[in-house]
Amino acid sequence: MGSLCLGSQAFDFVTIKSKQLQNPSCAGLWRKTSIGCWLPDALPARLDQMWFSEHLCAMAMVCLLDFEAYAEKYLPKIAWDFFAAGADECSTRDENILAYKRIRFRPRMLRDVSKLDTRTKILGTEISFPVGIAPTGFHQLAWPDGEKSTARAAKAMGTCYIASTYSTCSLEEIAAAAPGGFRWFQLYIHRNRAVSRQLVQQAEALGFQGLVLTVDLPYTGKRRNDVRNGFQLPPHMKLKNLEGAFEGDDRSEYGLPPNSLDPSVTWNDIYWLRSLTHLPIIIKGILTKEDAELAVRHGVQGIIVSNHGGRQLDGAPATIDALVEVVEAVRDRVEVYLDGGIRKGSDVLKALALGAKCVFIGRPALWGLAYKGEEGLQDVLRILHDEFRLSMALAGCASISEIGQDLVQFSKL
Amino acid sequence: MGSLCLGSQAFDFVTIKSKQLQNPSCAGLWRKTSIGCWLPDALPARLDQMWFSEHLCAMAMVCLLDFEAYAEKYLPKIAWDFFAAGADECSTRDENILAYKRIRFRPRMLRDVSKLDTRTKILGTEISFPVGIAPTGFHQLAWPDGEKSTARAAKAMGTCYIASTYSTCSLEEIAAAAPGGFRWFQLYIHRNRAVSRQLVQQAEALGFQGLVLTVDLPYTGKRRNDVRNGFQLPPHMKLKNLEGAFEGDDRSEYGLPPNSLDPSVTWNDIYWLRSLTHLPIIIKGILTKEDAELAVRHGVQGIIVSNHGGRQLDGAPATIDALVEVVEAVRDRVEVYLDGGIRKGSDVLKALALGAKCVFIGRPALWGLAYKGEEGLQDVLRILHDEFRLSMALAGCASISEIGQDLVQFSKL
Amino acid sequence: MGSLCLGSQAFDFVTIKSKQLQNPSCAGLWRKTSIGCWLPDALPARLDQMWFSEHLCAMAMVCLLDFEAYAEKYLPKIAWDFFAAGADECSTRDENILAYKRIRFRPRMLRDVSKLDTRTKILGTEISFPVGIAPTGFHQLAWPDGEKSTARAAKAMGTCYIASTYSTCSLEEIAAAAPGGFRWFQLYIHRNRAVSRQLVQQAEALGFQGLVLTVDLPYTGKRRNDVRNGFQLPPHMKLKNLEGAFEGDDRSEYGLPPNSLDPSVTWNDIYWLRSLTHLPIIIKGILTKEDAELAVRHGVQGIIVSNHGGRQLDGAPATIDALVEVVEAVRDRVEVYLDGGIRKGSDVLKALALGAKCVFIGRPALWGLAYKGEEGLQDVLRILHDEFRLSMALAGCASISEIGQDLVQFSKL
Amino acid sequence: MGSLCLGSQAFDFVTIKSKQLQNPSCAGLWRKTSIGCWLPDALPARLDQMWFSEHLCAMAMVCLLDFEAYAEKYLPKIAWDFFAAGADECSTRDENILAYKRIRFRPRMLRDVSKLDTRTKILGTEISFPVGIAPTGFHQLAWPDGEKSTARAAKAMGTCYIASTYSTCSLEEIAAAAPGGFRWFQLYIHRNRAVSRQLVQQAEALGFQGLVLTVDLPYTGKRRNDVRNGFQLPPHMKLKNLEGAFEGDDRSEYGLPPNSLDPSVTWNDIYWLRSLTHLPIIIKGILTKEDAELAVRHGVQGIIVSNHGGRQLDGAPATIDALVEVVEAVRDRVEVYLDGGIRKGSDVLKALALGAKCVFIGRPALWGLAYKGEEGLQDVLRILHDEFRLSMALAGCASISEIGQDLVQFSKL
Repeated sequence: MGSLCLGSQAFDFVTIKSKQLQNPSCAGLWRKTSIGCWLPDALPARLDQMWFSEHLCAMAMVCLLDFEAYAEKYLPKIAWDFFAAGADECSTRDENILAYKRIRFRPRMLRDVSKLDTRTKILGTEISFPVGIAPTGFHQLAWPDGEKSTARAAKAMGTCYIASTYSTCSLEEIAAAAPGGFRWFQLYIHRNRAVSRQLVQQAEALGFQGLVLTVDLPYTGKRRNDVRNGFQLPPHMKLKNLEGAFEGDDRSEYGLPPNSLDPSVTWNDIYWLRSLTHLPIIIKGILTKEDAELAVRHGVQGIIVSNHGGRQLDGAPATIDALVEVVEAVRDRVEVYLDGGIRKGSDVLKALALGAKCVFIGRPALWGLAYKGEEGLQDVLRILHDEFRLSMALAGCASISEIGQDLVQFSKL
Repeated sequence: MGSLCLGSQAFDFVTIKSKQLQNPSCAGLWRKTSIGCWLPDALPARLDQMWFSEHLCAMAMVCLLDFEAYAEKYLPKIAWDFFAAGADECSTRDENILAYKRIRFRPRMLRDVSKLDTRTKILGTEISFPVGIAPTGFHQLAWPDGEKSTARAAKAMGTCYIASTYSTCSLEEIAAAAPGGFRWFQLYIHRNRAVSRQLVQQAEALGFQGLVLTVDLPYTGKRRNDVRNGFQLPPHMKLKNLEGAFEGDDRSEYGLPPNSLDPSVTWNDIYWLRSLTHLPIIIKGILTKEDAELAVRHGVQGIIVSNHGGRQLDGAPATIDALVEVVEAVRDRVEVYLDGGIRKGSDVLKALALGAKCVFIGRPALWGLAYKGEEGLQDVLRILHDEFRLSMALAGCASISEIGQDLVQFSKL
Repeated sequence: MGSLCLGSQAFDFVTIKSKQLQNPSCAGLWRKTSIGCWLPDALPARLDQMWFSEHLCAMAMVCLLDFEAYAEKYLPKIAWDFFAAGADECSTRDENILAYKRIRFRPRMLRDVSKLDTRTKILGTEISFPVGIAPTGFHQLAWPDGEKSTARAAKAMGTCYIASTYSTCSLEEIAAAAPGGFRWFQLYIHRNRAVSRQLVQQAEALGFQGLVLTVDLPYTGKRRNDVRNGFQLPPHMKLKNLEGAFEGDDRSEYGLPPNSLDPSVTWNDIYWLRSLTHLPIIIKGILTKEDAELAVRHGVQGIIVSNHGGRQLDGAPATIDALVEVVEAVRDRVEVYLDGGIRKGSDVLKALALGAKCVFIGRPALWGLAYKGEEGLQDVLRILHDEFRLSMALAGCASISEIGQDLVQFSKL
Repeated sequence: MGSLCLGSQAFDFVTIKSKQLQNPSCAGLWRKTSIGCWLPDALPARLDQMWFSEHLCAMAMVCLLDFEAYAEKYLPKIAWDFFAAGADECSTRDENILAYKRIRFRPRMLRDVSKLDTRTKILGTEISFPVGIAPTGFHQLAWPDGEKSTARAAKAMGTCYIASTYSTCSLEEIAAAAPGGFRWFQLYIHRNRAVSRQLVQQAEALGFQGLVLTVDLPYTGKRRNDVRNGFQLPPHMKLKNLEGAFEGDDRSEYGLPPNSLDPSVTWNDIYWLRSLTHLPIIIKGILTKEDAELAVRHGVQGIIVSNHGGRQLDGAPATIDALVEVVEAVRDRVEVYLDGGIRKGSDVLKALALGAKCVFIGRPALWGLAYKGEEGLQDVLRILHDEFRLSMALAGCASISEIGQDLVQFSKL
């Protein structure tokens, strides 16, 4: 397995660590703590030295932002830019994160939180904690094994992975990499409907348990740096699920021919999709109560409140802000999920308090992959799991069912 | 045609590009993308190099801010300062932009946006999209051909150009540069009413289709840097429309004799202006519901909500904030437009959602001129057109008539 | 007359200018523009050079902030720190300025503003525009002639000067420096009431036309830098009005013996003060409606809404924020003034729109003195006058009486 | 007594001072001012030099932030990080401070404040002013004498010291260091209830006058830097109160075996605690009205509104924001205190105005210890006392009973 650490001359502990990890004679010098943080294995024995040293372990992977910093440092700029991109001025991308800071907890004390249960169910299937993997494209840009690593990590951590149409591994490869894993398949509707139909039927045959229809991308948003970089997939990567689906050689629009998606799709196409499959349909990209009502009326099983990570319409609201409106409109008729801006366990708790059944992470999963593939993504999920469990406990909730709207208030800021 | 790139020693890709463009042997090395961005023509063939290079195309013209950066870098400071100036502390100038960031979209999904129509009409004349050129002075400071380039670009892009009284080309030159173009003429009322009368009649005779009366400049605002710079027009530039209109040699106040404008103008002068011409009268500079009501009562055909780009009364509200009050007061009796702070297509969409029939751009047009005259301004307009069309689609609007107030909400920020 | 420009090695145009001004052979090289800005006299003849030069006149005195920058650069740090000081974290000092930025104008157009009248009356005496000089101490720290310069500048500009008890010139010197000038006298009540009584009677005898009682200084606020600097008056400066008033040599508390002020003063002492003099009494330091009501009931003639420039209780509101509450409580029974945070003409207009009859400037007057004594302070006042007049015109007000509360709204920020 | 000034090469006046203080021949060169600030003793005699020197006394200890800067500079990073730590992104830690800036005073004038009385009582015991020492752990990390110094300083300043279970001195040592001092004991409930019972009974026997039960730490919050640093107590420090209480050698969780605290504690355990002791029980860590009501119903004598200095649940509200809700719910049935964010005297005044009976300081006490042990902590307390008294006077309050809610308003910011 090749390394993605290209060209950096900087001397730091991450470099040391990765060398050690590749060098069997160094094994044992680093140990992994319970929260997924790598520390020198011999630390306790050298505590006195530690006491006076300020620089050791500066790159310990303690929180998701550490993975982000790692990815920004070691990914090629064109790949980092693609993953980080927001539309236009990135205001919606950034709002997704900032909006959480305007929400305050109302934590409750002296409740028995000795037994903490983070398990929940989405569409009837149990997951170990309410954080899944949102659909994102091109995982090979982050790690050579691409979506196969993602599938393995999600299964290992007991949660749901929504595989993107824009995967650099095929659905067969993904399914084979982690047999029995809980997976949904994310779908766009192409002008060539046969392409979409085939993908749906293939996903169902391969055991994917849900169909996630993305509805906020009739056209691709304007991501300035991708334009500047002239973003294209490197020659050795392919959109494996769509090989042979299109004629001609032009793959200049994010690996596909220009204008391959169908911008004429309307709510009636939900019925068409319904006719293709027995899988539950989850609609991704809803931001208003009006569309939430329409989604329910058209028979979907779930709604993901999403602004596509701020990559489509800049100026759309933060998803945590839009969540309240959608949850109120839906009135428990279908499950409501959310993606966008989740960076720590307490963000998950806030989203659940405001009515989300589960959240999905996009960029953080990619940072985990960029750090160390399957293992790195497990680290990311484990940190989120630990942080979420701790936040639950500190807020006085021993199980998911105890999380309610009275747990939060909006900040005066 | 001379170059305005004075004295910069910096090596960058813009310099390379402009050398290449002047050197026929380099033709073909750069190509222009569909969104008006210049990229190395040979890029796809050299993708592998691109993959590892981070600095190529750092100056690609992707959005309006790229043109601003270019203009700031290559214009003489005294010209840049004049164009960029706001009154006093520039708080209104800056608010014009910041206010858009406090407005959030409520985008709608699954609407058929396969056919997008951005055309609209202002005062009965169709334009290709709802962005015109606001009146600004001294275009020769930005590009040698001055307003002739502006007129050509506006015509080429199918939109309205409001020519300023303070043009460095004459109305005849402007009209001749782009025959048949859709133009309005912007007017101040001078103490010497004969000057104003003559200009109105000349504009009407030359085929200008509207009169835009600026009402927020009884005196010139205090723009600190213009005072510091001792701003004056360079000797080889003239206010061509006003040559011979004034006695004496003193042209120290922005190319005119001091105090040539009439600060005693009142609403009754609208009737005087009405008596001079058959053209529709649009009043520019209204910020309150009270003045909007007065404008309607005095028989104007249109209102431009404007604070003169923040160059007059510092502390006046952002135009997008004042728009709502004006639109409510007018109740569709006349058309309402807006200028100030438009920097991307989604700003246009927000202004239309809040009731503007069309917006006008001031400084961005000058940046386009400074970049490459007529062609540069076309680039700016094309980028805005593309961004606006994309924003419409992503918000679920296929045509202008589908844009309504329920498309936006004010941010919690 | 000595220079205060101590020890700076920096080469700049201010240095050049001051050398030229002292050198008769250079006279005429600099001219003063109508707004109080110094520019090279020969500039128009060298316009072509100007066109390419970016650095000329970088220190032109265009707005009050230019005087602030000058003062910070050329005053000894201990003097600058004393003038600039706010209590504790300086949050109230800074709020005084920031609060103006949260107020928006509602400017009105097409009103006849050809004749602008900025005159107003305070307690029956006409002033040329509604900006007076607030009481501040130790003017010799800014300019050798001290308060004599202040008195001359205020008289020359036709406005009111409130001389501080803590003056480094005596009341006689002040009165003699500008005979017939419009002046009030600012008073503290000392533990030794004889001191206060004598000052009141002396002021009345010398033609001062009002008594300003400062009520927000039972003890001196904690100004951190003054403590760090061990602030004391330099040996050659004295509080001339209080020489001989106190026993002993200790003058360690801002030039006075420690605890010389009487912290037991209450509203009843207004009656005592009333008994000493026929002069109108203006009370300075009121921030609440409750105290405003008490002031009216105790028979004062005027109220200055003030937080002592943020030098007393840190956390007190900005004066422009407190003004509305006080004006509403007073209901025109006495005149209400304001000091704190005035930095440009539009700030004056906002204060008048919210009900102030006149404002007073503190630190800006000191910056003017530091720049060039009487002449520098005249520059500051003239700039404020010109800016205020221009703001009036741009807001549609031809005279003070046309300024009303509908001229402003609070910002959405 | 050893010095903690490790390894700094920087030359500054603090270094000079500490050398002088250790060198008897230098005695007298420095004097301490009434507000706890050290200045060169000979300063008045050298005033002329002072006048031109800008750098003297740059490190005078004037306000609490000076102690913070000192501690950050001279403490080992691992100790500084531990004291400074907040959970996750430290947003609650920082909000504790920022929230005070959004509260404005409504100061009253002309009240007799010649006699200022800052004394108050908490649970019947008089303290010299309403600021006590909050429970914090590991004082030997800040100063070799640890909690013995803290106890002496609190007694000397006439206020209450809440000794932490996590002290590096034993309760006996603390009691013996300052006989007769007013102290409460802070308690966690351990899985091994015998440990807690023994501590309670020991505290009561040693004369501690109250039991403070911390309820917001069922598990330890995630403090990123502590994880990065692999924080552990240095080998020569012990949790003296818990020596022998636990089996095994593992002391890796802040000096204790992992999971030694009992996360199953509920309100019923208040009754158990009640059964162990006659001491009043104060509950620390309440942030909601619901829990405040429960606390009153379970018979506690006091409530400390606390978010553990932002070290537990990141996203919890600032304590000053939560205070209002708690005070309203309690309706004077028990006393309400607050800790978190107190940095100057006016913060204390705001907390009392909003209903707190007394506040407690955590980190500032540690900074004082780090500066100079008992003496440094006395400095910190004396500065707070002086600032609080001055703020009272400037707000028009001569005694604690005059402080009411009409003294404050929330800022428009």
